[in-house]
Amino acid sequence: MFSFKINKTDGNARVCTFVSSRGTVETPCFMPVATSASVKLLTSEEVFSMGFKAIILNAYHLFIRPGVEIITNSGGIHRFMKWDGLALTDSGGFQIFSLPCSREDEDGIILKDPESGALHYFTPEKIIEIEEKIGADVIMCLDYCPRIWDNLEELKISVHRTVVWAKRCLAAHSTEKQQLWGIIQGGTDISLRIWCIEGLERMEFNGYGIGGLSIGEPWEMTLKTVDFISRNIPGNKVRYLMGLGMPDQIVEACELGIDFFDCAMPTRIARNGTTLTWNGKFNIKAAACKDENGPLDPECSCRVCSTYSRAYIRHLFNAHEMLGMRLNSYHNLYFMSELMKMIRSSIKQGKFQEFKKNFLSKYQRKE
Amino acid sequence: MFSFKINKTDGNARVCTFVSSRGTVETPCFMPVATSASVKLLTSEEVFSMGFKAIILNAYHLFIRPGVEIITNSGGIHRFMKWDGLALTDSGGFQIFSLPCSREDEDGIILKDPESGALHYFTPEKIIEIEEKIGADVIMCLDYCPRIWDNLEELKISVHRTVVWAKRCLAAHSTEKQQLWGIIQGGTDISLRIWCIEGLERMEFNGYGIGGLSIGEPWEMTLKTVDFISRNIPGNKVRYLMGLGMPDQIVEACELGIDFFDCAMPTRIARNGTTLTWNGKFNIKAAACKDENGPLDPECSCRVCSTYSRAYIRHLFNAHEMLGMRLNSYHNLYFMSELMKMIRSSIKQGKFQEFKKNFLSKYQRKE
Repeated sequence: MFSFKINKTDGNARVCTFVSSRGTVETPCFMPVATSASVKLLTSEEVFSMGFKAIILNAYHLFIRPGVEIITNSGGIHRFMKWDGLALTDSGGFQIFSLPCSREDEDGIILKDPESGALHYFTPEKIIEIEEKIGADVIMCLDYCPRIWDNLEELKISVHRTVVWAKRCLAAHSTEKQQLWGIIQGGTDISLRIWCIEGLERMEFNGYGIGGLSIGEPWEMTLKTVDFISRNIPGNKVRYLMGLGMPDQIVEACELGIDFFDCAMPTRIARNGTTLTWNGKFNIKAAACKDENGPLDPECSCRVCSTYSRAYIRHLFNAHEMLGMRLNSYHNLYFMSELMKMIRSSIKQGKFQEFKKNFLSKYQRKE
Repeated sequence: MFSFKINKTDGNARVCTFVSSRGTVETPCFMPVATSASVKLLTSEEVFSMGFKAIILNAYHLFIRPGVEIITNSGGIHRFMKWDGLALTDSGGFQIFSLPCSREDEDGIILKDPESGALHYFTPEKIIEIEEKIGADVIMCLDYCPRIWDNLEELKISVHRTVVWAKRCLAAHSTEKQQLWGIIQGGTDISLRIWCIEGLERMEFNGYGIGGLSIGEPWEMTLKTVDFISRNIPGNKVRYLMGLGMPDQIVEACELGIDFFDCAMPTRIARNGTTLTWNGKFNIKAAACKDENGPLDPECSCRVCSTYSRAYIRHLFNAHEMLGMRLNSYHNLYFMSELMKMIRSSIKQGKFQEFKKNFLSKYQRKE
């Protein structure tokens, strides 16, 4: 039902195909974030048509709202939101750990729903049950996210529980229709990361999320850690860098052999007026844009850039017209899609280094 | 450049064609409201493709933001927002009169911009200058809007100034590329309305806005007033009922021979979760919708109804996902477009009364 194949490598960068019942996803791929079953402001059709074959959702958020019952009653998450591509659910570990919790131990977490006040007990078994009901194609284990990146004790607990919980997730997982991926924790501590990878590898997961990064550590340490982890995940397993990144970060992580990415930033910053272009990012709300009749990015061929001017989109933001956020979100995601196509194409041609150099020199010039 | 022709009448209801350099608009027609150069949350392309051939914008709002210079620099309002159909600008009289003003006399109004604090002096000449620069196809005279519907003194001042200002607007109007329409004031007072129509008719406008209604008076009085005014506007002139209405109101006003409508309600209520259907309106946020896998309206063939379920759209509203407002806005406007098509079709077939009866009995059943 699932297969993963390396098609081309260029250094450590690689183009692979991940096949599921939803079709083929070519990697490196970027997954737009649809936390609550919506890529903010955009339709599933738009996201698919701009070239994305996979999205990521959040099991915890979907459990809280609309609740699993509504999703199962509609025939699963794909039917619910009319998404025909690959769907992943993150367990929500990251979100659960960033909310105030009543109790937390070896066994799981009791969490108070911040809106309704209801108490929910999340265990690895419970999360898998939720993820199975939601019905994504790939589901992530419940991991224990460290709250501080450089506290060794916290990191040790994180890795220990993440491995124990992964085993319980695997035991609870009951369907071959979904592939379960493990999550690697350990902060920037190399020996803890190794411990975690070895622990998870004994369970023979088909894919690994690299978690617990971009939580405060410097980017150079992130990159060094990703490099180390990537080299230590067997080549035939999927490598998914969770929760980042921005265009330049993605290019650098592709060089290290990462296959899957997700990041809320491209759409989040879009709603604040930040526009991604091949010449770097800029803010469309800036006064300099008020008379610019050209597109957001002259090098972009998306529907927004081929229709609307910077002056118009700036006006929409200034007039608090939500269409501005919508158009900028569309453009930024289209940019991400094109970026991933360029990355894959350059790897296939054995020209990734050249692409990386050219891309970064243009993209980072203005920053 | 402009022409207006009656093609078919059925009682007082009529199907006409209004031709401009932007093509042909068949009436009765509903104009979506794009106050600040955006039909909220929707692209110009979407609005056009669902069958609308005319939109209304607001000269006062556009003067404040983005300012006329930005619009003229982009080549006029059509290019600015990429709208290829007919564009009307209301003068903004209604908006100006609902804001606190520093001074107001025979000559015009000094207004304090509520955001920037800047003082603006609006005279009939100034408004025409603004409307000419914005570059809509049809522009409305500056009228004096009564603040209270049943104060006779206020209504008298309103009619007097509206007629005087219309004359000044006409004198200031300098281009044949735009057609200038007058606005009829006078509240529900029949003799004041007659006085206003006669005053304006001496200036030989090609079209008339019916203003100053739906500001507190009972609907039956609105209808009676519209009927009276409509009968007293020469048949070869356009009749535009300004600022209303909802579906049932439009059907009733079409019976009285109204050609143009505009109303912000279909999109405004959409953003609050109210959905228009052929069986009346309902609120998609209602708990009853949580498990409904059918479309917003089973009788609707819009892209939203042929794709997404009530359960999904309800979830979007509950999760504060703006996509919910977008999808509901699209549906409600599509409904308005279909309604106008049905109205025109029934008039052409001489079956307007039958249509009206059937429509209202279904639409009003649930209300």
